[in-house]
Amino acid sequence: MSSLSDKQVDMQLEDLTGWQRDGNSIVKTYHFSNFVEAMSFMNQAAFYAEALEHHPEWKNIYNIVEVRLTTNDTGGITSHDIRLAKRMEHIIQPKRL
Amino acid sequence: MSSLSDKQVDMQLEDLTGWQRDGNSIVKTYHFSNFVEAMSFMNQAAFYAEALEHHPEWKNIYNIVEVRLTTNDTGGITSHDIRLAKRMEHIIQPKRL
Repeated sequence: MSSLSDKQVDMQLEDLTGWQRDGNSIVKTYHFSNFVEAMSFMNQAAFYAEALEHHPEWKNIYNIVEVRLTTNDTGGITSHDIRLAKRMEHIIQPKRL
Repeated sequence: MSSLSDKQVDMQLEDLTGWQRDGNSIVKTYHFSNFVEAMSFMNQAAFYAEALEHHPEWKNIYNIVEVRLTTNDTGGITSHDIRLAKRMEHIIQPKRL
């Protein structure tokens, strides 16, 4: 696996509402109705992250979840980060993948 | 509910291994074996936090969970923070409460 080029990252982010590039990471802050909704999101994402063997950095404060995705092995953004971001979007807004 | 005095906080922290005061918060960084263990801890703590109606600020990176407890209503550390910290200790090291 290798890091995506800047152009590749930009293209992928066009389809990822609210996600932004921040250095070698992509980041998004999710707002939920309450703590239980926030934890439910984290749990759903956690199962996928574990299966993908690619894990987020994330911070929770009550109804807010700040997510940061990066790939330490390459020091950049890889397809794993994009896949995990897409899955998170799917969790909050289910649709055909 | 009112904030605990500095002396009260110091006394409580004597029984809370690894917890430290940081301004108006108490903080601890937990290290687990892996991501699943870290998420399991967060889930167990989350049920208690929700029941207590008092929620942590916390950040997870793979096997690490950084916890910060404070009480926004009083702008200080209250008995709720101490109770939640004690419960977290109980989760990682079950004993008679």
